[in-house]
Amino acid sequence: MKLINNCKILIVGLGLMGGSYADALTDFGFEVGAISRKQSTIDTAIERGLIKHGFVEVTKDYVSQFDIIVFALYPHIFMEWIERYQGYIKPGALLTDVTGVKRSVVYKVQDMLRDDIEFIGAHPMAGKETSGIEAADRRIFIGANYLVTPTDKNTPDAVETCKELGKLLGCGTIRVLDPEEHDEMIGFLSQLTHCIAVSLMTCKDSKDLVDYTGDSFRDLTRIAKINDEMWSELFLLNKDELLKQMDLFLERFNKLKEFIVEDDKDKMREMMRLSSKRRGYFDK
Amino acid sequence: MKLINNCKILIVGLGLMGGSYADALTDFGFEVGAISRKQSTIDTAIERGLIKHGFVEVTKDYVSQFDIIVFALYPHIFMEWIERYQGYIKPGALLTDVTGVKRSVVYKVQDMLRDDIEFIGAHPMAGKETSGIEAADRRIFIGANYLVTPTDKNTPDAVETCKELGKLLGCGTIRVLDPEEHDEMIGFLSQLTHCIAVSLMTCKDSKDLVDYTGDSFRDLTRIAKINDEMWSELFLLNKDELLKQMDLFLERFNKLKEFIVEDDKDKMREMMRLSSKRRGYFDK
Repeated sequence: MKLINNCKILIVGLGLMGGSYADALTDFGFEVGAISRKQSTIDTAIERGLIKHGFVEVTKDYVSQFDIIVFALYPHIFMEWIERYQGYIKPGALLTDVTGVKRSVVYKVQDMLRDDIEFIGAHPMAGKETSGIEAADRRIFIGANYLVTPTDKNTPDAVETCKELGKLLGCGTIRVLDPEEHDEMIGFLSQLTHCIAVSLMTCKDSKDLVDYTGDSFRDLTRIAKINDEMWSELFLLNKDELLKQMDLFLERFNKLKEFIVEDDKDKMREMMRLSSKRRGYFDK
Repeated sequence: MKLINNCKILIVGLGLMGGSYADALTDFGFEVGAISRKQSTIDTAIERGLIKHGFVEVTKDYVSQFDIIVFALYPHIFMEWIERYQGYIKPGALLTDVTGVKRSVVYKVQDMLRDDIEFIGAHPMAGKETSGIEAADRRIFIGANYLVTPTDKNTPDAVETCKELGKLLGCGTIRVLDPEEHDEMIGFLSQLTHCIAVSLMTCKDSKDLVDYTGDSFRDLTRIAKINDEMWSELFLLNKDELLKQMDLFLERFNKLKEFIVEDDKDKMREMMRLSSKRRGYFDK
């Protein structure tokens, strides 16, 4: 177990997620450093007390100090970083991430990684509609689900450390699943829902809608305010699964439409009762 | 203006909406009575201090005492009630409702109504996923939108009184629109969103999903816990508009799907930016 009191943790990427990790881990007494593209981000993070120190350059002197490294980068930048700078990492260090897709990232990173360091994928199911270090807040993790996605290359010790990290962040439920299961799950629970929200929000010019709407439209479109750079990348990196989940949704939606066309109240009600029952599982 | 201090208000139907109206109006000092199918509902409403008195039978003695009557019934029950009991209503009384569809209700009620009483449609855009008198709570109206749907048959005085009622309830924005505009708006903002939520929630057996999900799926399915009797009736009473709105959504959703199939990141990002911009109007 690497997560001991005196271990030093490096956060690479100080956006909403990286900043929130830093917030939580500093609060727990770890020495947290960071690497970010902009000096102003480092300055803000230090001023806010989220990190102890940080740099815009990636140097061996700095990187080699850390026992645990958390990557909170866009998938392709994360993979480029590993390719370029993995030589700087301390032998025995544990690497983890927050990336929203796993198949297309985890295997590639593990394949190119040195034998004396280990990478284990993780995905905290937390976020906000705002981004950047200003929005960083450890409270986004409270009660959230935390997904750990080990492969055959991971050691039981890394899995345990990663689970421990999720608990430390304040996550409510920790689940271990393989990258394939993760991507199916996230294709449905997260990517499909963002596709729906974006589609709904772009149906009509909406300047006036705000004066007519109830909470339902607000709820369904909260996530329609979306980081287009990140999500378009995530969608394409999980393309096959996302398309499957979109088709699954379309099948149900078209079925409901058919019931309405045919005035089939019984079939509509049956579907609504199933919906109510299944939503009930979420209230526990 | 009929909404003066000593006017007596009758609520017909003591579900979530009727009970919440009663809660708010009693609190403002009006004498509020009610008619409900079950004695236990009347008893609960009196115990909770929502109404002063109430009956399960509809009698001329009771109904004729009231200056304003609010109907909070399923659409077909509301229309049957008017047909059967309108003879009991005091001359000069003002009738309003909370019904979620307007074209199929407002004209029929106005057509059959006596000449010495007036009905004006209204629709508070408020609710909860729970129903019944136990869930009644005046706070559901705070800041909500309130839609008034007059026709050529309505007097300016009735429109003003109805708007006043919305303000008294605590609604934030009062909008006047005709039944056709209402049904188009509600087909999109409310009925389509419920169709999406029900479709999404019935895609998969979901017992385990709760341990993996983030907030997005929770948000999109909050309204998937749905009163099947009421919503199937509302869907079919607005069938043509709802189907139009479903097709509009399908067109956008399929377009996004096409962009994903074609790896067209630019088009995806353009759609996401439009989505973000439009969702931004809701944050004002």
